[in-house]
Amino acid sequence: MDTFTFILEIIGTIAFASSGAMIAIEKKMDIFGVNILGATTAVGGGMMRDIILGVTPPAAFSKPVYVLFSVLTATLLFTIVYTNPSILDSGFKSKYYDTIMLLCDTLGLGIFTVVGIQAAANVMNKDNAFFFVFVGVLTGVGGGVVRDIMAGETPYILVREIYACASIAGGAACVICRNSVGEAAGAIIGLIVTVVIRLLASYFHWNLWRIR
Amino acid sequence: MDTFTFILEIIGTIAFASSGAMIAIEKKMDIFGVNILGATTAVGGGMMRDIILGVTPPAAFSKPVYVLFSVLTATLLFTIVYTNPSILDSGFKSKYYDTIMLLCDTLGLGIFTVVGIQAAANVMNKDNAFFFVFVGVLTGVGGGVVRDIMAGETPYILVREIYACASIAGGAACVICRNSVGEAAGAIIGLIVTVVIRLLASYFHWNLWRIR
Amino acid sequence: MDTFTFILEIIGTIAFASSGAMIAIEKKMDIFGVNILGATTAVGGGMMRDIILGVTPPAAFSKPVYVLFSVLTATLLFTIVYTNPSILDSGFKSKYYDTIMLLCDTLGLGIFTVVGIQAAANVMNKDNAFFFVFVGVLTGVGGGVVRDIMAGETPYILVREIYACASIAGGAACVICRNSVGEAAGAIIGLIVTVVIRLLASYFHWNLWRIR
Repeated sequence: MDTFTFILEIIGTIAFASSGAMIAIEKKMDIFGVNILGATTAVGGGMMRDIILGVTPPAAFSKPVYVLFSVLTATLLFTIVYTNPSILDSGFKSKYYDTIMLLCDTLGLGIFTVVGIQAAANVMNKDNAFFFVFVGVLTGVGGGVVRDIMAGETPYILVREIYACASIAGGAACVICRNSVGEAAGAIIGLIVTVVIRLLASYFHWNLWRIR
Repeated sequence: MDTFTFILEIIGTIAFASSGAMIAIEKKMDIFGVNILGATTAVGGGMMRDIILGVTPPAAFSKPVYVLFSVLTATLLFTIVYTNPSILDSGFKSKYYDTIMLLCDTLGLGIFTVVGIQAAANVMNKDNAFFFVFVGVLTGVGGGVVRDIMAGETPYILVREIYACASIAGGAACVICRNSVGEAAGAIIGLIVTVVIRLLASYFHWNLWRIR
Repeated sequence: MDTFTFILEIIGTIAFASSGAMIAIEKKMDIFGVNILGATTAVGGGMMRDIILGVTPPAAFSKPVYVLFSVLTATLLFTIVYTNPSILDSGFKSKYYDTIMLLCDTLGLGIFTVVGIQAAANVMNKDNAFFFVFVGVLTGVGGGVVRDIMAGETPYILVREIYACASIAGGAACVICRNSVGEAAGAIIGLIVTVVIRLLASYFHWNLWRIR
């Protein structure tokens, strides 16, 4: 289970580091700003989770691997755009930027939601569905909230259709299934539910009630 | 005492959830954004307090009741405005919105200040007036600061006349009185002092020194 | 060593409180807003550090001295500008404001970086260079990030040339040297490295790679 969780975490770290780095590149920050925003996004949710759970120092601090992967990801993205600056004005960007950003952010959201639930279950033995889902959602959305606040944007979670909603549904699916089908299968189910709901919502422009 | 504190907390949760939800409604967020901003405002200060005090996981996570009341409050407010959208443009709003917002925010500020002091006293036995007041003020202002930062506003605490000031005065009154008149009476006194100072300041437009 | 660290902390507190207070004065906040932003900047990084390290309640809460020095500093600055409001429009300001702000912020950055490393070493016995430097950098940049987010600015750390960079270099120098030359000398070396790199970068307008 630990290896499985670790692999998920690294994929989630790369996905969130990409989303943070891309926003920083968009805003014309320098290579350091790009790395900082990438790392903050990637480890922000997990740090909040560990602090909430009383796990100090948080894993992001005690194990360099998460920051390392963030830095590699952000530096690679920066290098690609730096050596091909025309990419920012090209049709490529207008066509694919939003899609790639959505995929990275959604993958990170789904992965960190189920990883957060696993971490909560490791700390608290007795079953508490509300607690598990809440910690999962915080882990999933935390990095993006920090990214958006630091970048001066309104947090995704407040304005994107079906964002926290997808994380809550995936987290609930994970908590419900993990007792019957096992932790790993439950995590996969929760991840798929989160990602599918968010992508469907984005594709079909599902909207929640909103006041006009 | 615990029941008394709990009742205060629920009233404060409803008041702060209302203030967060109303700002989100103002900003035309969808029903989920309204719920998220309401819940963040309602539990934000208490979460910070518990983390500062080393109480992990924070009460907002281990007990669903606070988030539940936030969600009920925010959903009710959203439903009222959704079914009567004209309310946002009517004279009603221009006349009463600011007043209701002020009352909710002030009530939450006062309640969470004294509740924070109670929580600090539960954790640390020896009397430390500075520590108690500081934790109380953080609990009182924390939710509003998170709300304003997430909504992209300058935090109330930095720009509203007599805001943290009222919380500090109420917190000090509570700490001074609770030894002589008892915890519950001390809490009521601290609450009244905070609310009265803030409302008087707002009504009479008291201003602190400001550079022109 | 404790006395030495304490003296550094007080100087850093005054420097960061000044930088927070000056931004608040610039934004025409009242005396309370100036004090709040000053105190938040001064104790923000240390609070984050203590929470990360699991030291609860954080020193800023249990010992009033840091907040006291913040309040004295912010009130003094406010009084100077309040009694000489022309200072804000004069040539003095346009000439010296940025320089004083840079010096205060740089001094605070350097001091809190090495103080953070000392605090991390007190908590964790085994040598972990990554962990020490990370905690140091978080302590160094934390107060400024909170200040900028509360004031509605893009955090310095994301946009100023060679900011976190200077803190990382100074932190690494401190961690490398403290084993051979002792903790105090290591702290001084780390502080000097941070300050010199940041000031040189500012003076010569060093820029990191940035996408045009």
